[in-house]
Amino acid sequence: MTDDLNEQPESAEGGYRIERAVVSAVHDAIEAMDAAAIDAALDPLHPADIADLLEQISSGERRALLGLWSMGIDGEILSELDENLREEVIGYLPEGVLSEAVREMDSDDVVDLVEDMEDDQQEKILGALEDADRVAVERALSYPEYSAGRLMQRELVVAPEHWTVGETIDFLRREDDLPEQFYHVILVDPGYHPTGYITLGKLLGSPRATKLTSIKEDSFRTIPVTQPEEEVAYAFNQYHLISAPVVDEDERLVGVITIDDAMVVLDEEAEEDILRLAGVSGEERLSDRTLETVRQRLPWLGVNLFTAILASLVISQFEEVLTQIVALAVLMPIVASMGGNAGTQSLTVAVRAIATRDLTGSNMWRVVRRETVAGLLNGLIFAVIMGVVGVVWFGTPMLGAVIAVAMVINLVVAALAGILIPVGLEKLGIDPALASGAFVTTVTDVVGFFAFLGLATLVLV
Amino acid sequence: MTDDLNEQPESAEGGYRIERAVVSAVHDAIEAMDAAAIDAALDPLHPADIADLLEQISSGERRALLGLWSMGIDGEILSELDENLREEVIGYLPEGVLSEAVREMDSDDVVDLVEDMEDDQQEKILGALEDADRVAVERALSYPEYSAGRLMQRELVVAPEHWTVGETIDFLRREDDLPEQFYHVILVDPGYHPTGYITLGKLLGSPRATKLTSIKEDSFRTIPVTQPEEEVAYAFNQYHLISAPVVDEDERLVGVITIDDAMVVLDEEAEEDILRLAGVSGEERLSDRTLETVRQRLPWLGVNLFTAILASLVISQFEEVLTQIVALAVLMPIVASMGGNAGTQSLTVAVRAIATRDLTGSNMWRVVRRETVAGLLNGLIFAVIMGVVGVVWFGTPMLGAVIAVAMVINLVVAALAGILIPVGLEKLGIDPALASGAFVTTVTDVVGFFAFLGLATLVLV
Repeated sequence: MTDDLNEQPESAEGGYRIERAVVSAVHDAIEAMDAAAIDAALDPLHPADIADLLEQISSGERRALLGLWSMGIDGEILSELDENLREEVIGYLPEGVLSEAVREMDSDDVVDLVEDMEDDQQEKILGALEDADRVAVERALSYPEYSAGRLMQRELVVAPEHWTVGETIDFLRREDDLPEQFYHVILVDPGYHPTGYITLGKLLGSPRATKLTSIKEDSFRTIPVTQPEEEVAYAFNQYHLISAPVVDEDERLVGVITIDDAMVVLDEEAEEDILRLAGVSGEERLSDRTLETVRQRLPWLGVNLFTAILASLVISQFEEVLTQIVALAVLMPIVASMGGNAGTQSLTVAVRAIATRDLTGSNMWRVVRRETVAGLLNGLIFAVIMGVVGVVWFGTPMLGAVIAVAMVINLVVAALAGILIPVGLEKLGIDPALASGAFVTTVTDVVGFFAFLGLATLVLV
Repeated sequence: MTDDLNEQPESAEGGYRIERAVVSAVHDAIEAMDAAAIDAALDPLHPADIADLLEQISSGERRALLGLWSMGIDGEILSELDENLREEVIGYLPEGVLSEAVREMDSDDVVDLVEDMEDDQQEKILGALEDADRVAVERALSYPEYSAGRLMQRELVVAPEHWTVGETIDFLRREDDLPEQFYHVILVDPGYHPTGYITLGKLLGSPRATKLTSIKEDSFRTIPVTQPEEEVAYAFNQYHLISAPVVDEDERLVGVITIDDAMVVLDEEAEEDILRLAGVSGEERLSDRTLETVRQRLPWLGVNLFTAILASLVISQFEEVLTQIVALAVLMPIVASMGGNAGTQSLTVAVRAIATRDLTGSNMWRVVRRETVAGLLNGLIFAVIMGVVGVVWFGTPMLGAVIAVAMVINLVVAALAGILIPVGLEKLGIDPALASGAFVTTVTDVVGFFAFLGLATLVLV
């Protein structure tokens, strides 16, 4: 009976999680130092899942596993591994395994693997490559970090413009060394400038005598080799590209970027924005050790401490009125907190709209107006509610009026700050996701406390 | 001279933004009611960019533009348009234009277009389709919302397992109605169950006599038609799929999902998480009107007001000590604010790790331990800093000690709440991105004020 229960697939957990049974089998095999059992558990898994599993076990288990199973690590697993674990894992691999793993990787994956390494480790890996591949990787590394040149692969399929479908298919059949994955044949002129491309579906569906030029796609975009990868990912998503040729400054074809690589970048960019908006470094990973986590979180907490002290300095200007009316101390965090939340809403919408190119010079003032009016309306709604709460709770109508007016002021300021600060940072070349939060909450804290306590001093004392 | 300046491409602005010149040309053309000028400005643009432009102009301009240029709207532009604008835009289109636009769309795009519409408008659009397409769309609509069945397209290319490369190519050349884009030929058995797939590159690179079964891909995954689209997007990203066959409950082939659709879903899911984490409805769009914006933001601000009042109730328990020592009122927001920020950091990391399947049962307790220790260490660091600030500012060593201890307590609680709350919500089937923030800040506010003011009462009075 129990056996039956254990054998049930854990599909209820939701698809694509590594099955618990596999994880326990690996744990057990590590404890028993049983290399064959590890192999049996990991062999059926996709390299991406093996990489995830390596990220999820503790560093001690990782060391033990790699000691027993280093022969199992291949190029695909290395490519899938989180960057912050790669050096650790590579450190456990025998030279031969590492060379073998690297030799079977595509050039873009090797670039991704070595670009953040120390020079001597980079040398070691590049040394394991065949000459042509090493040159390709070194050329890629000469392009700026996070540029199309780093992202592209050099393996591609081209055809001269004057070929027919038949000539192209014959060429492809003769060619031994076709890329693992390709989706288009790129047309080039005699100067190796790309002039269009043909989907493989069209190539397969057309008679042999068809001229390539007559079946090329209408829309055709090339990507400059120095273009930031974020822009590349945007172009793939916006224009539904599947692959796109990359050209150098002379418009000559140097490589191709495929949609799966663009998808990874798009995913990483969104992830970075999410983390940065929450004051976490975009590089933080779940597999980080504790001290690394502390280091990643400290700066933002430091900034927040500074802004919180600033807010306290504002409060300290009103010590006298606070001593006289203690209700003010009870109620003042409400105004600041509502402002902080409204500001975060506006700024998050603005940061994402900047990232997705939806917020531009041409609609910015309309958006500012909308945010301000929305802030005003929400401010009025919550002013009424808090005014009533203030009166009911403390029995002082004027206190209700003060908190209501302060609420309206702070929500309007929050809305304005939430959009103007990220737009301003973007114009200064600073990632708005990284820094907006600190500025906006400083503004809403300071304005919130100042408006509330200042009005109270004027009206209630 | 000025002309020269104006003619410079605005590449400094970063690629892929719609050029300002185009936007101004459209503005001018709308004002002049000049349909030909609108056509001249918009015709060179990609449908996705035209859709963006429609989103960026005001609703008045949109009405004017569509009055003049309704013939220009095609199926691609409609597909690219934000959902919340589609009904508005469709409302301006003459019947003939709409039918024509819908007829040229892929079945998955029609599904996406009509799935959120009122019944009568849906009827009208489905009525414009040819019979076979209408049946396909209606079948898709019978699958759950946000499932693979809604995402897939029914246009696909299959081949019986026993065919050779030559037979397949001959079939493709004969077939008039190939899908616009396809990347694989799916192998099916006589029962129409998919058994593998061939990349078009392999098909093109292999001799005519080659058996299809000998060049099929090693890894092959089918997607159940009821699988949530979020899981589908995860699978594409994790396993670098380009297209994947979709099967019904009898494992029969019913459609295919391609990576570009998965990329859109992945992008939308990340966007939704970002917005929800900031207390903004995942559906909010920049093109929303003001009242819609107010409506989208109100609920979260309401929740925040409630939690802020809760925190104020805690403060009100300590009115006496606040009256005696006004410095407490000055300093107390610092403890709450630091806790709120540390909690947001933890929870954001946890929410994303849940979304990306990095946080699982097998590493959860290690992550909880790491977060707690990291919270403790950060707490100690800021306790020392704030202890010193407290002493220097107010000259009372015990006040410095109270704020230091409260800081440590609140940062540890923040770290724990930041991970346990999203994990708990996930287990209850609630999207952790949606609700965690409110719970975590409530905990850190209440604990922050209670620890600080409580300790002060014990020690200082």
